[in-house]
Formats: sequence, structure tokens, C-alpha cells
Amino acid sequence: MDKFSHFDEQGRSRMVDVSEKEDTKRIAVAKGEVKVSAKTLELIKDDEIEKGDVLEVARVAGIMGVKKTPDLIPMCHPLAVSGIDIEFKIIDTEGIIEIIATTKITAKTGVEMESLTAVSTAALTIYDMCKAVDKAMEIGEIKLLKKTGGKSGTYLSDE
Amino acid sequence: MDKFSHFDEQGRSRMVDVSEKEDTKRIAVAKGEVKVSAKTLELIKDDEIEKGDVLEVARVAGIMGVKKTPDLIPMCHPLAVSGIDIEFKIIDTEGIIEIIATTKITAKTGVEMESLTAVSTAALTIYDMCKAVDKAMEIGEIKLLKKTGGKSGTYLSDE
Amino acid sequence: MDKFSHFDEQGRSRMVDVSEKEDTKRIAVAKGEVKVSAKTLELIKDDEIEKGDVLEVARVAGIMGVKKTPDLIPMCHPLAVSGIDIEFKIIDTEGIIEIIATTKITAKTGVEMESLTAVSTAALTIYDMCKAVDKAMEIGEIKLLKKTGGKSGTYLSDE
Amino acid sequence: MDKFSHFDEQGRSRMVDVSEKEDTKRIAVAKGEVKVSAKTLELIKDDEIEKGDVLEVARVAGIMGVKKTPDLIPMCHPLAVSGIDIEFKIIDTEGIIEIIATTKITAKTGVEMESLTAVSTAALTIYDMCKAVDKAMEIGEIKLLKKTGGKSGTYLSDE
Amino acid sequence: MDKFSHFDEQGRSRMVDVSEKEDTKRIAVAKGEVKVSAKTLELIKDDEIEKGDVLEVARVAGIMGVKKTPDLIPMCHPLAVSGIDIEFKIIDTEGIIEIIATTKITAKTGVEMESLTAVSTAALTIYDMCKAVDKAMEIGEIKLLKKTGGKSGTYLSDE
Amino acid sequence: MDKFSHFDEQGRSRMVDVSEKEDTKRIAVAKGEVKVSAKTLELIKDDEIEKGDVLEVARVAGIMGVKKTPDLIPMCHPLAVSGIDIEFKIIDTEGIIEIIATTKITAKTGVEMESLTAVSTAALTIYDMCKAVDKAMEIGEIKLLKKTGGKSGTYLSDE
Repeated sequence: MDKFSHFDEQGRSRMVDVSEKEDTKRIAVAKGEVKVSAKTLELIKDDEIEKGDVLEVARVAGIMGVKKTPDLIPMCHPLAVSGIDIEFKIIDTEGIIEIIATTKITAKTGVEMESLTAVSTAALTIYDMCKAVDKAMEIGEIKLLKKTGGKSGTYLSDE
Repeated sequence: MDKFSHFDEQGRSRMVDVSEKEDTKRIAVAKGEVKVSAKTLELIKDDEIEKGDVLEVARVAGIMGVKKTPDLIPMCHPLAVSGIDIEFKIIDTEGIIEIIATTKITAKTGVEMESLTAVSTAALTIYDMCKAVDKAMEIGEIKLLKKTGGKSGTYLSDE
Repeated sequence: MDKFSHFDEQGRSRMVDVSEKEDTKRIAVAKGEVKVSAKTLELIKDDEIEKGDVLEVARVAGIMGVKKTPDLIPMCHPLAVSGIDIEFKIIDTEGIIEIIATTKITAKTGVEMESLTAVSTAALTIYDMCKAVDKAMEIGEIKLLKKTGGKSGTYLSDE
Repeated sequence: MDKFSHFDEQGRSRMVDVSEKEDTKRIAVAKGEVKVSAKTLELIKDDEIEKGDVLEVARVAGIMGVKKTPDLIPMCHPLAVSGIDIEFKIIDTEGIIEIIATTKITAKTGVEMESLTAVSTAALTIYDMCKAVDKAMEIGEIKLLKKTGGKSGTYLSDE
Repeated sequence: MDKFSHFDEQGRSRMVDVSEKEDTKRIAVAKGEVKVSAKTLELIKDDEIEKGDVLEVARVAGIMGVKKTPDLIPMCHPLAVSGIDIEFKIIDTEGIIEIIATTKITAKTGVEMESLTAVSTAALTIYDMCKAVDKAMEIGEIKLLKKTGGKSGTYLSDE
Repeated sequence: MDKFSHFDEQGRSRMVDVSEKEDTKRIAVAKGEVKVSAKTLELIKDDEIEKGDVLEVARVAGIMGVKKTPDLIPMCHPLAVSGIDIEFKIIDTEGIIEIIATTKITAKTGVEMESLTAVSTAALTIYDMCKAVDKAMEIGEIKLLKKTGGKSGTYLSDE
């Protein structure tokens, strides 16, 4: 495909009509990361052990963020997602919190944007929870890892 | 400051009480970028010239995203922002669309999260508008560039 | 079942994957009540007869509240409910306004939370409409009365 | 039909139960217009040619407005629309911007309100974008042009 | 003023910075109307007398619609309105339901869009409540009647 | 006061005009409880110690719920709350989870509804998280404990 589907022949933006597409089971996995200082990472890990869990708040925000995807992204179809899962991995040596979101649905269109929005929202929440200590955090490497289902079939990122 | 303000002494998450803080003029500038293929960049630039403007849709989404910040980020205060500005820079040689968001307010607390959310939402919208052509795009380098106003004063990123 | 389905094996909260479940017709009936002073009840009943109907505003709020359920309750699936009905019963002798909400859907998961949210929202609205007169009102006895459809079958409260 | 379906036998407002209705493909086309001064129309048309496109912002707002329909209209069912298209026609001689919205879905109930809400939201956005120049604009002639699908069949406005 | 304030020098859409403007008391009055068949008007008036009040549901929707204005209109500032009032007038001879909305605030920017959105949302709700009986209704003559406060001073429509 | 402020002289519902009222510091404390089975309480307490924390998810939902109050309760003013705090107490002997919410603001009107909505939303979330194990839970005793600030002064519940 060599043109943007969200514009019609006249170049008008639109929500693409998917009414003729089939309902198939679709899964999308996205990732992203937050780079934090060594001190911030230490504080986050301490929280994990005791109470006041930064990552648990970020997880709840990410799950709720999925449901706001069509409200945030103009041309996204409203979708009734059937499952969301968010996982965090702390990579100590690099000061990185990795976020992986998996969204599932049976629908006429995919849930890539839902997984990417989950990752973004969780990352922004981590930033917010830690910004009193560390303003130089950086959110990055947000990308689609995998997508299955639908006419275009399976997509796997090179990573 | 060496602890997270969004937790109290018992480690309970909370929206920090800012009622005793003063209303001051505050500005926050954040940036981020979307890395796209050469072909996608060509298509985006063609759109700029003709019609069906990817970046204009992303700009509207980013501006509306600012207003959804307290709805997305659990501990963010609801704030009546007084101005938002989103700028895009196309860096041809690197296949990068840079996004810079500036948010202004007179309030008891800052608008860092608002600018970061604007950048994220605009970036996700660019991904959505282009994903029929390019699924390998990557969103990254989302960070705070500058922050003025408030008791903690001015912050400038090293960049 | 002896564990919470909203956590996975590692104890991470999640929106449970229901994509393999069947679409069946499901109904959930919930109730709740607002205890008010004799004077407040008199004013509400006067409104019913003339104009300025407290209960009609509460009914509209309750119906709209159903549609906000996935936005309020973190792990709730977004659902396209197919019908909502809210009924009020005034129990004069006890100073009680009883609220009964019935939600219907054909879906992979039930609508208990939708009916409970309808009852809660209607109750909060009654409180808001009457609080200039009576601040000591109490909202209570919010519970599921009945649930039909789905694999776990029919549930009937003891009441 | 000679009574309002959104009230039951007792006159209580409700979201009508559509769970027994069949899923059919449904399309609704609505229109409306904004009457503006000659000078405002000139400015809008200049924008079309250069940058700062009033109508493109209004189009994005209209498309996003469709997704907010159940949140705005109390008795509307939440629906997962499958496509939205908004078209503008400038009628120079009369100082009119005509807005036509087409919404598609496969569902148990129609999308008339979605198309009418798209038109209204786009019209309000045009008003907002131009109000610094022209406060006397008027929004009008919002009506359903066509509706297909569902038990009540095709409706065509006289126009 | 002869240019649109919602675009900057480069023609980029933006939320205008109002942070330097003064807080003043502002009021905006808007109107609109729904043209209905004689039969529909009869049904609405019957409801007024008995129960199941179309106009009361529309009033609640209009009041809630005001609070969604910044969520609907991309460049609108989020505002904490301090009062909303919606009035209906039935003009029997013309089959018209007139809607008048008054919004008040003390803020740096006006509430014209809030009053216009209230009128639109109430009108759409009337359409929705009556559409089972009458699909040919028309919403029109939505305009600003009056605006006071702010630097640009008082505006009065010719009407 | 012996009439409902949310209706005008003609009995029309409205959002009361507070524009003439003074900004004062206001605090509202509300409480509520969820009655659960002994087994459910055991599971919740186990979660507290390990991971998968029911109460932490409910706390996040309650804090986010405060921000949705004007969206849920028709006549509530939109308010920029300045702090929210939610506390849980487990009363073992009675199988009760008590929820206490404290909301703070400097504004022209109080935050009773915000604290009551926080309690309700947290309670509904506890129900949702535990309902796979226990459908007979009951939410109750939701009431205002204390309110300070504003013209009507301090209110203290009898409890």
C-alpha cells in the first residue's frame, strides 16, 4: 500500500470505512521505555518492595489509557477491546524501565494504536510519579513489536 | 528533593495538595520525535503541499490531548491551561519529524505533563495516520526541554 | 473460583482476556438507596407533582453513568450496552428512595458493574440535588440483585 | 409509531432495549450549514489555499464528535461506528459553508444521531475558529438527509 | 480584527495564549430552535403535563454539554463555568421549540462557545427523543444573542 | 434553606450561578464502606502483603473519579481540585473495608460531591476486583463526614 488510508481521493481526512471487513481475532504488542537516573531507579525499586508502587499506578493508567485511544487519536475507530496486559521490565544496567503492552480483540480492525497508547500513557505516568526527583527522564523507543490477525496478516518488528 | 511527592508517609499514592502554593505564570516546553521511512516522509511532505495534512491532524490531536492530561495521568491536577502551541520540524536527512509543544498557565502547579502529553498524542496520531504505509515507525526522545515559573524555578534540559 | 481474575499469576492487575468467551444475552439488576430526612422527602415528592424533578435528573445521570463505567472502573471492559432502565421507589415510612437499575447486553462479559454504577451515579445525583437542604443523607445498600447469562449462569441475591 | 420510544409505559425516560434487534448495515447522512459574512468566507477560502485550514480543523472535530455522541445525548446507545466521512461545500453566492456527514455501522440501531452530532460539532468549530472576526454567524438547517438499514428501512428527506 | 486568532503567523492552528488577559465577569447568551411537526409538538406538550419530559432530559443534556465544550471544540480553553441556565419556549403557531442558554464565568476568556454548545446539545437531544415519531425535524438558527465582559466589550445580535 | 438550589423559581433544573461567591479554602471529607465475605477479606489482605493490590487499584480509581465528578453529576460545577487523599481501613471483625476520601480546593463552591464520588468509585472498583470470588458484597454508609470553608461554614456529621 503506498498511500495513507486516512485520506480519501480528495485528500480529506476520514475514519476509514471498515464495515465490509471481517471480524477476526487480533493481537497487538507494543513496547516503549523510560530512561531514568540511577537514583530514581533505586527509589522505584524500593517502592516495589515496600508500598507506594510507581509501576502499579502506571499499569492502571496504561490499562485505562487503552480505553481512551479513540478519544485521543482522531481517526481511530471506537473498539471494544477484550483484554489488556501491561508488563514492566527493569533493566538495571541501563537505567531503563521497559513497558510492554498486549491488547486483544475480535474486530474488523486492529489494536496497534491501543497498545501504543497503553505504553505511552504508562510511560507518561512514570514520568509524572518521579518528576519531583528527576526531570531529565526520557521516554523513547515506542514501537509496534507484533501484530496478528486481519487481512494484512502478521507483522513482526525487526527487533 | 529525594522522594516521590505522589506518595504520602505511608506510601499511599495521592494527588499532592497544592492549595497553599501561589498562582504564578508557568511555561513548559517538551519535545519528541517520530522516526519514519524515507518513503513515508515523502508522502507526509507531499501532503503538506497539497491537501490531507498529516501534521495538521496531529496538531489538532496534540492540542486536544493537552486537555485530556488529568484524565490520562492519575495524579495530575485538573488545570485550566491558557495557551498551547505545537510545532513540527521535518529533519529530512534523518527521517525524523520533531514535535515541540509549549503550554502556558497561571496556576499553583506546572504544566510539564501537559506538554509531554501533547507531544505523545501528536506522535501517536502521526503513527496512526501513516501506519497503512509504514508499521516500523518509532516514537522517541520525549523529554522536557524547559520549565519556568513556580517555586522550583527554571529547568533547562542539557540538550 | 477462589482467586481474583483481575490479577495474573504474577499478581499484576490486568483487564481479563474475554476474547474466547461466547456472546450471550446478559442482564444485571442492581439496587441501592438514599436515606433522607422527612423534610427532604417531602420536597422531593412535591417536585414530582409539580416541576423540577429531582428523580428525573437522577435518572438521566444514572443512564449516562452506565456509559461511563469503563472510564471509571479500571479493569472494566468497554461494552456497548443495549438497554438501560432505572426505577425509583419512595418508601415513605423509612425516608428512603430506592433505586433499581437494569442493564442488558449481548456480549462476552456481564454488566454487573454497569448496573451498580448506574445506581451509584443516580444516588450521588440525588445527594447533589438535595444537599442545600440536607447534608446528612446517606447512600447505602448498593448491591447486585440478579444476574443472568454467561458461563457462571444466574445469580440471585438472598434479599 | 405514535409515541416516543425513549419513555416507557410509566413515562420514565430510558435507553430503549435493542438487544432483540438484528445487526444490519446502517448508513446515515446528515447536513447543516454555517452562514458567514462575505469577509469571513474570503478568509476561510484564503486559508484553504495557504495554510491554517479552518475546515480541516472542523473536519477533525466532527469526526471526533461522532465518537462522543453517546456521551452527549443521554439516551443514545454506545456504538462502535465503522466509518465517518465529512464533506464541506462552500456556496459563495449565499455566504454558506455546507457540512455533510456520513456515518456507517453494522449494528442493532442506527447512526442518525452520530451524523447529526458530527455536523453540529463541525459547525460549532467553524464558529469558534472564525469568531474573532465575525460574531454574527448562524448555524442552521441541521437535518437528516438519508438513512438506510434497520427495520424501519430507508428514509429520505424531502430536500 | 481581520484575521483568525486561532492561527499564528505561520498559519498553524493553536489555542490562543490568554495568560496575560484579565479575569473579568463574562456572560454569553445563545439561542437555537428545533422545528417539529404539529403532531410531535403535541406529544412534547402532553409530556410536559404528565411525565416523561422531553425538555427536562434535553435541559440536563444541555447543562452537561457545556462542561464538554473544551472536549468537543479543539481550540476552546478549558474553563470552570460558574453558572448555566437553559430555557425553552414553545412557539405553537410555527411548530418551534426555542432554546436559550445563558452561561456565566469569571475568567480570562469568554463563554460564547459554551452557550452555543449547550443549545446544540439540547437541540440534538430533542431530536433524539422524538425521532421515533418524526425524522424530518430541523435544528436551526443557532446564534449568539449577547455577550458581555472582556476587552472586546458587549456584543448584541441584531435580532 | 428550605428549597433545592438546583431549581429556579419556575422549577427548572440549572447549574447554580456561583460567580458572585468568594474564593475560599474548602475541604470535604466523605466515607463509605464495602462489606465483604471473610474469604474475600482474606484474599484482599494477602494481596496487600504480596502483589496485585486491590486497594491500590481502587485508590487510583477513586483519585481519577474525583476528576470525573462534573462529568457524572449533572449540576456539579467543573472545579480544579488542589489535592485528593484516599485512605482505607480494614475492620476485620465486621468484614468491612472503610474508605475515607479528603478533597481540598480554593474555589467559589465546595467539594462534597468530589469526596463522595471518590468514595463511590473506589468502592465500585473494589467490587469489580473481587466479584469473581464474591458477588454478595454490599456498598454502603456513604456519607459526608465533614466540610469546612464557604459561607455555610463547617458541617460535621453526627457520627
